[in-house]
Amino acid sequence: MRRGAPPRLPGMLTMQEALARLTAYWTEHGALIVQPMNTEVGAGTLNPATFLRVLGPEPWRVVYVEPSVRPDDSRYGENPNRLQTHTQLQVILKPDPGNPQELYLGSLAAIGIDVGAHDVRFVEDNWASPALGAWGLGWEVWLDGLEITQFTYFQQAGGINLDPVSVEITYGIERIIMALQDKQHFKEIEYAPGVSYGEVFGQAEYEMSRYYLDDADIEANRKLLDLYAGEAQRMIDAGLPVPAHSYVLKCSQAFNVLDSRGAVSTAERAAEFGRMRRLAGEVAKLWVSRRAELDHPLGLVADKAPARPASTVQTGDRPRTLVFEIGTEELPPAELRNAREQVLRLVTEGLAGTRLAHGDVRVFGTPRRLIAVVPEVAAREEDHVRTVRGPKTQAPAKAVEGFARGHGVTADELATEEINGAEHYVLRKQETGRDAPQVLAEVLAKVAGGLRAAKNMRWNDPKLAFSRPLRWLTALWGDDVVPVTVSTLAAGRQTRLLRTANPPVVDIASAETFLETLGVNGIVADHEDRRELIVIGAQDLVYPDGRVDVAGEAALIDQITDLVEQPLPLLGTFDEGYLTLPDAVLTTVMRKHQRYLPVRDEDGKLLPMFVTVANGPVDVELVRAGNEAVLRARYEDARFFYRADLDTPLADMKARLTRLTFTDKLGSMADRAGRIAALALTLGERLGLSSPTLTRAAELVKFDLGSQLVTEMTSLAGVMARDYAVRAGESRAVAEAVFEAELPRNTGDSLPRTLPGALLSLADRLDLVAGLAATVGLPTGSSDPFAVRRAVLGLLAVHRSTPEFASLSLVDALALATQPVPVSAEVLAAVGDFLAKRLEQALTEEGQPVDRVRAVLPHFARPSVADTLLGQLTTAVGDPGFTAVAAAIQRARRIVPDGTPAGYDVSVLKEPAELALHEAVSGVTLPATPDLPQFVAATAGLVGPVDTFFDDVLVMAEDPELRAARLGLLAAVRDLGEGLLDWPQLRL
Amino acid sequence: MRRGAPPRLPGMLTMQEALARLTAYWTEHGALIVQPMNTEVGAGTLNPATFLRVLGPEPWRVVYVEPSVRPDDSRYGENPNRLQTHTQLQVILKPDPGNPQELYLGSLAAIGIDVGAHDVRFVEDNWASPALGAWGLGWEVWLDGLEITQFTYFQQAGGINLDPVSVEITYGIERIIMALQDKQHFKEIEYAPGVSYGEVFGQAEYEMSRYYLDDADIEANRKLLDLYAGEAQRMIDAGLPVPAHSYVLKCSQAFNVLDSRGAVSTAERAAEFGRMRRLAGEVAKLWVSRRAELDHPLGLVADKAPARPASTVQTGDRPRTLVFEIGTEELPPAELRNAREQVLRLVTEGLAGTRLAHGDVRVFGTPRRLIAVVPEVAAREEDHVRTVRGPKTQAPAKAVEGFARGHGVTADELATEEINGAEHYVLRKQETGRDAPQVLAEVLAKVAGGLRAAKNMRWNDPKLAFSRPLRWLTALWGDDVVPVTVSTLAAGRQTRLLRTANPPVVDIASAETFLETLGVNGIVADHEDRRELIVIGAQDLVYPDGRVDVAGEAALIDQITDLVEQPLPLLGTFDEGYLTLPDAVLTTVMRKHQRYLPVRDEDGKLLPMFVTVANGPVDVELVRAGNEAVLRARYEDARFFYRADLDTPLADMKARLTRLTFTDKLGSMADRAGRIAALALTLGERLGLSSPTLTRAAELVKFDLGSQLVTEMTSLAGVMARDYAVRAGESRAVAEAVFEAELPRNTGDSLPRTLPGALLSLADRLDLVAGLAATVGLPTGSSDPFAVRRAVLGLLAVHRSTPEFASLSLVDALALATQPVPVSAEVLAAVGDFLAKRLEQALTEEGQPVDRVRAVLPHFARPSVADTLLGQLTTAVGDPGFTAVAAAIQRARRIVPDGTPAGYDVSVLKEPAELALHEAVSGVTLPATPDLPQFVAATAGLVGPVDTFFDDVLVMAEDPELRAARLGLLAAVRDLGEGLLDWPQLRL
Repeated sequence: MRRGAPPRLPGMLTMQEALARLTAYWTEHGALIVQPMNTEVGAGTLNPATFLRVLGPEPWRVVYVEPSVRPDDSRYGENPNRLQTHTQLQVILKPDPGNPQELYLGSLAAIGIDVGAHDVRFVEDNWASPALGAWGLGWEVWLDGLEITQFTYFQQAGGINLDPVSVEITYGIERIIMALQDKQHFKEIEYAPGVSYGEVFGQAEYEMSRYYLDDADIEANRKLLDLYAGEAQRMIDAGLPVPAHSYVLKCSQAFNVLDSRGAVSTAERAAEFGRMRRLAGEVAKLWVSRRAELDHPLGLVADKAPARPASTVQTGDRPRTLVFEIGTEELPPAELRNAREQVLRLVTEGLAGTRLAHGDVRVFGTPRRLIAVVPEVAAREEDHVRTVRGPKTQAPAKAVEGFARGHGVTADELATEEINGAEHYVLRKQETGRDAPQVLAEVLAKVAGGLRAAKNMRWNDPKLAFSRPLRWLTALWGDDVVPVTVSTLAAGRQTRLLRTANPPVVDIASAETFLETLGVNGIVADHEDRRELIVIGAQDLVYPDGRVDVAGEAALIDQITDLVEQPLPLLGTFDEGYLTLPDAVLTTVMRKHQRYLPVRDEDGKLLPMFVTVANGPVDVELVRAGNEAVLRARYEDARFFYRADLDTPLADMKARLTRLTFTDKLGSMADRAGRIAALALTLGERLGLSSPTLTRAAELVKFDLGSQLVTEMTSLAGVMARDYAVRAGESRAVAEAVFEAELPRNTGDSLPRTLPGALLSLADRLDLVAGLAATVGLPTGSSDPFAVRRAVLGLLAVHRSTPEFASLSLVDALALATQPVPVSAEVLAAVGDFLAKRLEQALTEEGQPVDRVRAVLPHFARPSVADTLLGQLTTAVGDPGFTAVAAAIQRARRIVPDGTPAGYDVSVLKEPAELALHEAVSGVTLPATPDLPQFVAATAGLVGPVDTFFDDVLVMAEDPELRAARLGLLAAVRDLGEGLLDWPQLRL
Repeated sequence: MRRGAPPRLPGMLTMQEALARLTAYWTEHGALIVQPMNTEVGAGTLNPATFLRVLGPEPWRVVYVEPSVRPDDSRYGENPNRLQTHTQLQVILKPDPGNPQELYLGSLAAIGIDVGAHDVRFVEDNWASPALGAWGLGWEVWLDGLEITQFTYFQQAGGINLDPVSVEITYGIERIIMALQDKQHFKEIEYAPGVSYGEVFGQAEYEMSRYYLDDADIEANRKLLDLYAGEAQRMIDAGLPVPAHSYVLKCSQAFNVLDSRGAVSTAERAAEFGRMRRLAGEVAKLWVSRRAELDHPLGLVADKAPARPASTVQTGDRPRTLVFEIGTEELPPAELRNAREQVLRLVTEGLAGTRLAHGDVRVFGTPRRLIAVVPEVAAREEDHVRTVRGPKTQAPAKAVEGFARGHGVTADELATEEINGAEHYVLRKQETGRDAPQVLAEVLAKVAGGLRAAKNMRWNDPKLAFSRPLRWLTALWGDDVVPVTVSTLAAGRQTRLLRTANPPVVDIASAETFLETLGVNGIVADHEDRRELIVIGAQDLVYPDGRVDVAGEAALIDQITDLVEQPLPLLGTFDEGYLTLPDAVLTTVMRKHQRYLPVRDEDGKLLPMFVTVANGPVDVELVRAGNEAVLRARYEDARFFYRADLDTPLADMKARLTRLTFTDKLGSMADRAGRIAALALTLGERLGLSSPTLTRAAELVKFDLGSQLVTEMTSLAGVMARDYAVRAGESRAVAEAVFEAELPRNTGDSLPRTLPGALLSLADRLDLVAGLAATVGLPTGSSDPFAVRRAVLGLLAVHRSTPEFASLSLVDALALATQPVPVSAEVLAAVGDFLAKRLEQALTEEGQPVDRVRAVLPHFARPSVADTLLGQLTTAVGDPGFTAVAAAIQRARRIVPDGTPAGYDVSVLKEPAELALHEAVSGVTLPATPDLPQFVAATAGLVGPVDTFFDDVLVMAEDPELRAARLGLLAAVRDLGEGLLDWPQLRL
């Protein structure tokens, strides 16, 4: 059809062929086909064939294509990998068939992907749609590093727990085809024989991008959103979930259009999500009840029957090794670590509850298995005598006989024993120890059944819940199968190898040979062994040109280690040209998106290579090429944005902030940046820290939020500001300040080191807190959508780390953070309390004793002062002088009633002790600033007189005048400590 | 998946398999696959893959499934054959590949339909979408009487002529599958293995029906419609046809929702269609220009090259038969008749322009071929001498020599001849007659190229246009091919047989054996032969039980005759139970929908059988069963509605009229029925025709528009009213009156025979005309959406056929037809003119001479009077008495200036002739009512005096007084005819 279309490679699938093959594959596996939704949806999940059908007890197995509309991904068709409408192929398996991963791999084979040659991986990726009240756990599937599929066990939809659970498989078709056809741009995909994707869809891609990004009428779409929501609600009220759902989808699309036009504030977003979630929830409830009314036309899913234990005969009497393997689907690395610890604890505790002698428990784990190995487990429990307490010896004979009869013995078979000081009849039962397999079966059942993760899910097992499905159990004591059963699983002697192994399962002869068998088949069970293979392998690969920063990348290496069973480090390279991109961009992509290890030269300069770790034997060249292509695509993306940004004057990027709504009441991000700048300059003046650098940095602050790269990778905010500022000819100092304005980005992040940076950072956070406190309120409970807590912690950290701020009260500074709405005194007071609480939390988490933290907390508004005092307290608390003064002050506080003023009539005083104290008090000159050593020095003369006073003088004299004068004197002592510490908090 | 699903028949396709097979078939034939539109569309045509892609010069071949949403077809899933969302499979072939029908038949085979065993037919069905500015010509494809596909050659879209033309094939999937699976209800379709259609889509069908029929918010959907139209316009202004188009689609859906909610008045409909047509037109223009800007990414369709004539060598010298066959795709019966006449004329005229001796031209035709047969066509033209005129003989020798040289002769070879009275040199050229094939080729090329239909279309031929594509030419003179070429077609000796023949083409040995060859292969070329086969076959089939009313069904039989090439009448039966349905319902379905011949017994009672006529040899049992199933489904539908209607009290049906909008300004149909009732009663009183029957019938009038059956089959309005009224216990007379209120339904229909019926019929039409004239205006040009012309013709016919109305002036009656809007005198006058014009038209069409019609037209308001006068004129015109009177009156009119009063001073008159005339005039007593014989009798005495007067008297006397008196006298003569006829119109 096309002029000069190049000949197709033999065997290469066109996109439409691939869709047809996948559809055919799934229909062969019992799926029915439905059509895409006839209203715009953001994902196949929204199609009623998923969203509604996963609800309720009916079975459902479906496959369909779904053009998925993501207005936000509009790029005018220019970005090679990003489309406003991409093609999903969606599969729902309800119930979970038990082997969905294997079925899925079969589907890849159906479109010609050799899963043995490629590196196919299941990488943790959980899914949640707040707008749908839906979530699930699962993975993104990687093909040589390329995410090609979302694989999710649906747990909830519309706020309803799903039973049975559905498996959702969503193929990203364009990506898969680009990989299969080796194309660099989606437009080059061979869509049909001789026709490219761009030729068919290019124009629509451009024009719909124009609509979503530039031309959609905001007012019209707002009205649409409200009309849709109205119809949805009306249909819910009419009891019609199907039309109601279609209007919820239309709401979603209208919202997405508004969003891509930059017309949605954070507050609106929250409100709209709330509305959609509520509507979706009502739709889901209605659907469930309607299906019940219709008596579930598709029938009901039958629960799986509980497993029957393997029949086993114990062989041998010697102690043997116990091995217990729990086979899972790919566990997330964090959950794997946690699960290893759990297994260790559960096995250890379980065995302790038996009378089986055994060696030390060791536990191993890979993404697909948890293994406990216990050497020298005795063949049976030791025999023992169990004592059953009977009636006291004084009890009537009838009672005694009854007890004996109850245990099937006669009274004369009972013995006596003193228990709790009273003589009782007891029955001593001789109990023979049970055989190891029998005992172990009970212990191990509790291990497998007792596993819990931070986030648990359900699958096709009626009783189990864990991070990912348990799929098999292997349990051997020596040569014998331990007949463990857990819900529907029964242990055997078979284990599973890599899915690509041939055959993929193997029988284990005996527990002693288990790890060896795994090892022979390539599986490295021990985390440390795998880690070492990776580290050594990586270093070998890059030697001698470069090095991998093993210490710096420790967390990443740990993560990689728990993503594979059989690590195969591979070296990949990328075009040197990409090295012109900022280091942070390159490494962020490698680490966060791809989990590749960056490679540097001796000077720490990035080299154009990376190390990735495949799982198991693969076609190295193929996998290398695949990973390189993925990285190239990502870098191409980044370069696309980076170049576009470099072509954009800083002022233009900054101008784009007017299009980013912060919140509806607090205006745009441009408004916010303006407020930050003004506040930073005001504070700078107050502190005498004004500078041209600050002035210019304040003008620029946050400009990079208007850059394309930061829009894509928000974690690079600040970093890109610095880069772009330098390249635009700003001074180093200005560039550093706009970078530092974003610090700290999270707990433990570095803090501003320059004063302009610190002022901007402080102003940023003050503005955020003041504005949000005055509008949406401070965060309560776990909900903190604007991360106000983090901002406040940052605020405190910056203040504390900047000596120049010591004199600055955060409360005063907050009052200067003018907002477009009034900020009342009550709000400021509430923010003050919030600051104090966060400071208390921060200091406590740093290991400071709570009492001291609380003692210095009155200085929360100047946290560096609190820091200083805390430091001084560490010494002071051991100092007798301080202790004495502190004791004196605390004693005075306890005696003097609240509200007693410090004034007194000296002439009334008579006793020498009281006169001495009067003199000592009068002689004290307190230091100008809060400083404990100075305070101690100033008040040192007070200690003796106070002690004498308390020894010699009765404060509560009968003469009222005298009593008043003595109390006034003590009040003066009390007040010496005023404003320094919250004395009652301090434990001495 | 389903509980207790019955086992599937072996080889039976599920619906999803059928969709997959059809898709695969078309991709094998070069189509690419796209997805359904992700916004609701009423048909696959609206998907941009059709609507936009058929525009412009780029090739395009696509197949896709399209769930098509027709809110108006919502039936809560209860109707076995009607769904609010049905599944279309849409194919676009651009350009027309030349054999799209054959490709299509291949696709049926791909889903297991044996096209040789079934009766597959292409039955005229043209397509137009006013809202899209689109139309095309084509067929509905029938499978054993069941419409399974729409097959259209697109001619225009968005108001743009399409070049190249696209072929659109739209499969109605549910219908096809119901037939293949032998299901009686769409819900029973086996959608996927073990899963029924109802189980998957039943709930949505019910709920969306609820939305469309009952629950959609009208105000919200109105707002949506306006918002969508706004966005569409905005996108057009932004130059973005793709998003604009999607909003046009959304407009269409919102409009359809409003429509199904009964919220669209006729005026609104017209306005919205206008808006959509305008938007669609702008989208189309934009698309075309954008594709041109993009340089037509898919390339350009190459024009087909002109054909090269067959090389042929003439054999033989004897006169031989000429046969010329033009092979077409299935012609509509009306066009076939027309085309046969054209061929006859063109061939006859063409041959007359040659010097070939030949016998009489005969022409035959079937839906797929037009055949001209001419016996005894001479082998070559007769030789003859052609005379070329040269210069006059007086001309200079140089000129003479030049002339001779120019013709390649010398001057002495010239002769002389007198031409136009002057002697000229002439050249006498002896011309040898050309061979027959050569001459015939020229003649026949003009025949094929000159064919034109009432509605012409284009296909893949760059130069031809006709009712349907011309696909082949067969042209033989004796044994020799006549080398005709027309554009891309070249004649040969091959003809095509039935598509199911094996082989489907055959070589013709000689022209003389052509018809025989066709006949041997079953094709009956002659209409009369086919008709006879049908009539005799049908009568044989039903003998002796019944009979087919050959005379009564003549038009239908003629139509059937031209739908087949090889008629095979088949007898089908239906369940006797359906005979409880009204006769009109049963026969309307048979005739209009299925083109079946009804069968009656001797008493004219319908028998439960029908005759259908298949085309060619088919599996009789299969085709019979198929047709029976189709009829059963249609009757089941009708029974469904009929029963529902019988369960509904007449008052309830009538109450539904409030939900039917007539026009926005003229209110609901209930309002209109109320006005009709009031007017009928008023007129009845005036004429003294009131009766209880009229009163009750007026209460009921039009109630059956609220019945389900009439909603489905509007042509049954009135018929069902009568039926339902009788069954509801109304009197026969009342029932007849509500039926007659609808008469006449079209030209030639019967007229009311009862007075209540006639009054209601008259009132109905008066109301319609008055209301519409006062609001939207009277029809002009070809646009007459409310069929006002037909109403007026009916009005006149009823008046003329009801003697009791003779005294009733339609103009007066019209003034009584009170409307909810003011009806001005100007409007009434305009309606009067309109009535007069229609009466003139009606009378003229009845064969009355125009002059007489015009002469009686002053009586248009009482057309029965006009009738009477016209009748009298027929006699009168030949009557000397009348002629004389008429001549006298006309003569008087010519002489007397306009405005001259009839008064005169008798005393001034002197001449005997004028005095005699005065006496004669004074003596005339005119009849009380317009009556020509009486008038002639009354004025008989006038003739002599008038003649004498004109002979003897000079009217224009010099004496002004005398002249005035004489003119006054003549004016009195003139006025005798006043109010009787428009005398000047009458040609005597």
